[in-house]
Amino acid sequence: MKYRCSCAPPPKWAGLPRLGRVPEDCHVSTAERATRELLVELLRAFYARGWVSGTGGGICGPADGGGLLLAPTGVHKERVQPDEFFTVNPLDGQVVRAPANPELRPSECNPIFCLAARRRGARSVVHSHALSAVLAADLATGADLATVPDHLEIRDLEMLKGIRGLGNRDVHLVPVIRNTPREGELVQQLEVALADDRFAGAFAVLVADHGAYVWGDDVWEAKRHAEVYHYLFEAAVARRDRRKEDPR
Amino acid sequence: MKYRCSCAPPPKWAGLPRLGRVPEDCHVSTAERATRELLVELLRAFYARGWVSGTGGGICGPADGGGLLLAPTGVHKERVQPDEFFTVNPLDGQVVRAPANPELRPSECNPIFCLAARRRGARSVVHSHALSAVLAADLATGADLATVPDHLEIRDLEMLKGIRGLGNRDVHLVPVIRNTPREGELVQQLEVALADDRFAGAFAVLVADHGAYVWGDDVWEAKRHAEVYHYLFEAAVARRDRRKEDPR
Amino acid sequence: MKYRCSCAPPPKWAGLPRLGRVPEDCHVSTAERATRELLVELLRAFYARGWVSGTGGGICGPADGGGLLLAPTGVHKERVQPDEFFTVNPLDGQVVRAPANPELRPSECNPIFCLAARRRGARSVVHSHALSAVLAADLATGADLATVPDHLEIRDLEMLKGIRGLGNRDVHLVPVIRNTPREGELVQQLEVALADDRFAGAFAVLVADHGAYVWGDDVWEAKRHAEVYHYLFEAAVARRDRRKEDPR
Amino acid sequence: MKYRCSCAPPPKWAGLPRLGRVPEDCHVSTAERATRELLVELLRAFYARGWVSGTGGGICGPADGGGLLLAPTGVHKERVQPDEFFTVNPLDGQVVRAPANPELRPSECNPIFCLAARRRGARSVVHSHALSAVLAADLATGADLATVPDHLEIRDLEMLKGIRGLGNRDVHLVPVIRNTPREGELVQQLEVALADDRFAGAFAVLVADHGAYVWGDDVWEAKRHAEVYHYLFEAAVARRDRRKEDPR
Repeated sequence: MKYRCSCAPPPKWAGLPRLGRVPEDCHVSTAERATRELLVELLRAFYARGWVSGTGGGICGPADGGGLLLAPTGVHKERVQPDEFFTVNPLDGQVVRAPANPELRPSECNPIFCLAARRRGARSVVHSHALSAVLAADLATGADLATVPDHLEIRDLEMLKGIRGLGNRDVHLVPVIRNTPREGELVQQLEVALADDRFAGAFAVLVADHGAYVWGDDVWEAKRHAEVYHYLFEAAVARRDRRKEDPR
Repeated sequence: MKYRCSCAPPPKWAGLPRLGRVPEDCHVSTAERATRELLVELLRAFYARGWVSGTGGGICGPADGGGLLLAPTGVHKERVQPDEFFTVNPLDGQVVRAPANPELRPSECNPIFCLAARRRGARSVVHSHALSAVLAADLATGADLATVPDHLEIRDLEMLKGIRGLGNRDVHLVPVIRNTPREGELVQQLEVALADDRFAGAFAVLVADHGAYVWGDDVWEAKRHAEVYHYLFEAAVARRDRRKEDPR
Repeated sequence: MKYRCSCAPPPKWAGLPRLGRVPEDCHVSTAERATRELLVELLRAFYARGWVSGTGGGICGPADGGGLLLAPTGVHKERVQPDEFFTVNPLDGQVVRAPANPELRPSECNPIFCLAARRRGARSVVHSHALSAVLAADLATGADLATVPDHLEIRDLEMLKGIRGLGNRDVHLVPVIRNTPREGELVQQLEVALADDRFAGAFAVLVADHGAYVWGDDVWEAKRHAEVYHYLFEAAVARRDRRKEDPR
Repeated sequence: MKYRCSCAPPPKWAGLPRLGRVPEDCHVSTAERATRELLVELLRAFYARGWVSGTGGGICGPADGGGLLLAPTGVHKERVQPDEFFTVNPLDGQVVRAPANPELRPSECNPIFCLAARRRGARSVVHSHALSAVLAADLATGADLATVPDHLEIRDLEMLKGIRGLGNRDVHLVPVIRNTPREGELVQQLEVALADDRFAGAFAVLVADHGAYVWGDDVWEAKRHAEVYHYLFEAAVARRDRRKEDPR
């Protein structure tokens, strides 16, 4: 059954957006309120970097009681307000709490985010449409993505240490799966990739022609991993450009 | 007949600009006030991205009574104030309301914006001088732009879903027309492009050596389309650079 | 004789800088106060773009009585305060008014700025260290810069209309001079360039390995010209990169 | 013996971060308070530029009594607060004062920063993970980094004047050392590089696959040097890209 919070939604799209605050008497814990405000802050920061432009991309984080806070679909992500998140059950993706605004719908990322939560224990997932992720996935798409996940190999970079469990001498493989017409249909491929031993240490998956999903144990780890993986994608593209002409 | 609002214009160019507010007693509806403030906000955001630098580029949005709010020409676009827009009749481009400042003139985009309004029902149009649009148009200019519109073909990108009516498997054609000495003279070519069945699904036109016009049903759709098309232009250029040397 | 304003300088470098305001009782006109505040604002904006980083670059604008307001040398340009400008006489570059802080010295741009004021009537000049200007100058440095100014040819861009007097069909030549150990020594070369009929319509000069000087009749025109020329430099470099491999 | 300041740490990660202020009654001088606030401000600015993303990178500056203020390790650098710095003795790297929060640990940069302080008298060091530094180091890694430091040669750029002691006609050599599993292990290589006469005038060292360390006599010089060296790295990469295909 859906629980609908009775908080009035803040006026939308009026003038320069500010970081709204969840009202003090809202029916969520202090911790969830802080998480909602942090997700809103990060969506604005990610928008400024070009990761969630054109209403694409998104983020989720931990809700009270084990749920996931999920941004709505089809909205300008830099303008999401703290009371506009859905709470979904990661076991089945069902919405257990919806924002007061009846026009909002949960993000299409829902099944992907829930899968990362179930298979990897992720409590926060970032979905990025960064062009650097698309170009990095291009580096891997010589193989037959239609049947098995391919991968991007990353090595020789200090920033690998920013990924939990890695040192800067490690060779890190990021799975690359093919894009599908709807995001929910990516689930089957992602299941295969997450079960692949080669990718046991990965906290990200690249989707060809699309972007990346990056996760962590909490919002802060997801943020750190998102920053690190985007750096690694940019480095991979920049170095490939140069080494193509000037092999070392 | 021109109606001149008696609101005093805010002091211009004094110190760091702030988002001015239309006075409460101004003779426009609350909805139009919000639109004016939003257009001002977006001009500043577009300026920060390099889409409307050097006083170039612009935007229009819906005015009360079916008109279009049009920014003035030749001004630093990031400093336009909410009471500095013209209201034009999209049927003939005539100014039906002018800002109090008699030095302001309506943007040269006027006939283009009105044409998009008449032929496509656009209620908001963004005109961008982004370098990515110029470079994307360069990709298409092998053909004889002097006689027929050429096009940029975009495919294999999830971001296509950000354009109304498209899926990520679609092949999307954006018309490319040649530049002319004055913006009003682009109208004839744009008429031909908008009547071309190949471009029935396009919400943008590229102008070679110049930039792009991008539109939508309202300001929010125009903003989303503008973000999506700029992403597509950047992706087209970046991928062409790489595939030239490394064909897949 | 130097006139020293008795205004106490604001505390420097303490915490996040804010745009200082010249005290109401300062011995300058309202117009000059507004200009000082605008120059400070623009230095911060130019810093954010990478035009005046590492204490390099600068700007001047009109002072009361026909002088030029000149930023100090060797300071972090994004932190200059409104009462830290020198006033110089453009006829001879002599300082006619100095800021209260005795540690400040006038910018090395002084003789160049004054020359642009005398030869072209410029009331405001921007000096940029933008990397795009250096790379654009590289495009021209095949010739013998040691003896005569070379040039960068710019054509086929709508943004040319942002330069006073130009249309988008014009072919615009920007002089390129060689760098010298000290900025004052650029004067002789600039004299030659400004006397060269080929460059009669130019509001900018490129200095190889260094950057650019861009001017206008007032601060707003200098700002517009600076934005336009940097766009043109970026476009020239981007198109040269692409046409090298794929000539049209 | 560690002295633990009894100041309560500010609430962390709650909403949009603001620049915290060290409480008035904190046991540090006004000068150190200003330095702590400045370091916090610069970490945020460096984060915005991509120099300290993913919790990487860092900075140190002068503490009261000859110590170095050192940011903690593994934290999001743009969110460090003024009371979260460690004070270390540059002679041996020992922590002489720690922040109240017992979960914080001193940055791994500690031995490198202290070495720069001892060998070069640096009172402030910036550690950057900028991709431009990695790509610049790639330009030098044809040699056998495993045995001797290699270098990046920089010439023909006005911005060289932004480095203390240099003119724009100088040829400047920046040492490039190889990366090691832990940052402390870089010390031995850095000792060799700093003792190498070729690098007597360098205020920076590049670490291959990693980034750069840049220093100065005080925080302002370290900031200026950091801006200048990053510019030089970007210029070196951009020019190498172009000259490879089009030698002058």
